Amino acid sequence: MCQLLGMNCNTPTDLTFSFSGFAQRGGRTDHHADGWGIAFFEGLGLRHFVDNQPACESPVAELIRRYPIKSRNVIAHIRKATQGHVALENCHPFVRELWGRYWVFAHNGDLKDFNPRLHANFRPVGNTDSERAFCFIMQELAKSHAGVPSVEELTLTLRELARPIARHGNFNFMLSNGVALWAYCSSNLWYVERKHPFAHAKLADEDLSIDFARNTTPDDKVAVVVTEPLTVNEAWTKMEGGQLKVFADGEAHR
Amino acid sequence: MCQLLGMNCNTPTDLTFSFSGFAQRGGRTDHHADGWGIAFFEGLGLRHFVDNQPACESPVAELIRRYPIKSRNVIAHIRKATQGHVALENCHPFVRELWGRYWVFAHNGDLKDFNPRLHANFRPVGNTDSERAFCFIMQELAKSHAGVPSVEELTLTLRELARPIARHGNFNFMLSNGVALWAYCSSNLWYVERKHPFAHAKLADEDLSIDFARNTTPDDKVAVVVTEPLTVNEAWTKMEGGQLKVFADGEAHR
Repeated sequence: MCQLLGMNCNTPTDLTFSFSGFAQRGGRTDHHADGWGIAFFEGLGLRHFVDNQPACESPVAELIRRYPIKSRNVIAHIRKATQGHVALENCHPFVRELWGRYWVFAHNGDLKDFNPRLHANFRPVGNTDSERAFCFIMQELAKSHAGVPSVEELTLTLRELARPIARHGNFNFMLSNGVALWAYCSSNLWYVERKHPFAHAKLADEDLSIDFARNTTPDDKVAVVVTEPLTVNEAWTKMEGGQLKVFADGEAHR
Repeated sequence: MCQLLGMNCNTPTDLTFSFSGFAQRGGRTDHHADGWGIAFFEGLGLRHFVDNQPACESPVAELIRRYPIKSRNVIAHIRKATQGHVALENCHPFVRELWGRYWVFAHNGDLKDFNPRLHANFRPVGNTDSERAFCFIMQELAKSHAGVPSVEELTLTLRELARPIARHGNFNFMLSNGVALWAYCSSNLWYVERKHPFAHAKLADEDLSIDFARNTTPDDKVAVVVTEPLTVNEAWTKMEGGQLKVFADGEAHR
């Protein structure tokens, strides 16, 4: 299964990712061996890393493991191919520009017979259902607003857009424009709002873990959204099917 | 001054970049310390690395140094900021999607009073003259063709588009869609067409060098375009001011 991980913080937060589970398995099980990617915003700028090699063999994964990421919005994805062959252009997260901002999207699930009419300026480069859905969302956002709308307005529009797509199958997705993180739950997404002091967070299947820096301040807030909850004793909230939540400044909007 | 480097090959070619010059200077001179970036196509997919740290301190530069790149089209850029502050969103090369293909652009020079009307779907995220020019080119390409045109048609359109922009200043640029590499010379660009067996190539100022793999075949062809010619004894051709050349399958189109 694909793993999604999203993070939204109220201040650029130092953290490192590690892929210990991948490395241990050595890719020999071929589970989650179909590519992966991470995108993180630094101000308006974006760092985007994708790889169609298993993370255990990837020099890019090695970089991410050692790289001190300082970001307010991060989306990561580990892919098990369901549609589209294993190729770089099919690795999530995907990126497009709209209204002079970068938009990042990753999807976990499988859409059947989703072939929307893409008549505007967002076209898939690869051949996944996920990138088609992203292009459709961007096209409809561009039609719905003349410029960058508020987080609240975007949430309303995304809520309307997500539901008809989700009728085509399993559509857990995350979207960020560097200001907020939107998470739509079709079947399986959990989130937690964490505050200072941060502990080490480890995904249940050990594929991916996050270390927060020790020098967080009492004002720091971080929201983390994942496919499967972290194992540590924190108050994880399971999202409901059909629910869209937006995270800004490190916490869920009510 | 900014350094541009473009490469176009007839077969995915193994090569590695290194930043030995940066490392030697240790970034202490602050020359070329304003960010850098590399994008390389792998099929339809794209790897895009940008950094606003000096290459000597950048973990991403360290990755590139060790990463075995296999690509047919590469654009690299080392930036000395003339317009726009030193920020990730201002680092070249820039990327946009059009017609279901990624497009990569890097610019060397300085445009004065270039403020085209950007009414369509390509807007700058940062605040450089270069990204404005790229967005304008993408907007006009989108208006000129209904879908991906042939390399020859694109060359004609780009030739028309480049000239009025170049009246605003120094406009050496490179553009690639993963199929071909276009290079426009305003003041300073050189190219060479190399064939098997490839030697080690080193830029004159030692900032950036390329090692080609030893196992090239007699059919391999590579075109390299740079701001300053490599120092080795090869037949570098200086491009003329106002000249647009297109490189496909490892050689310049006549």
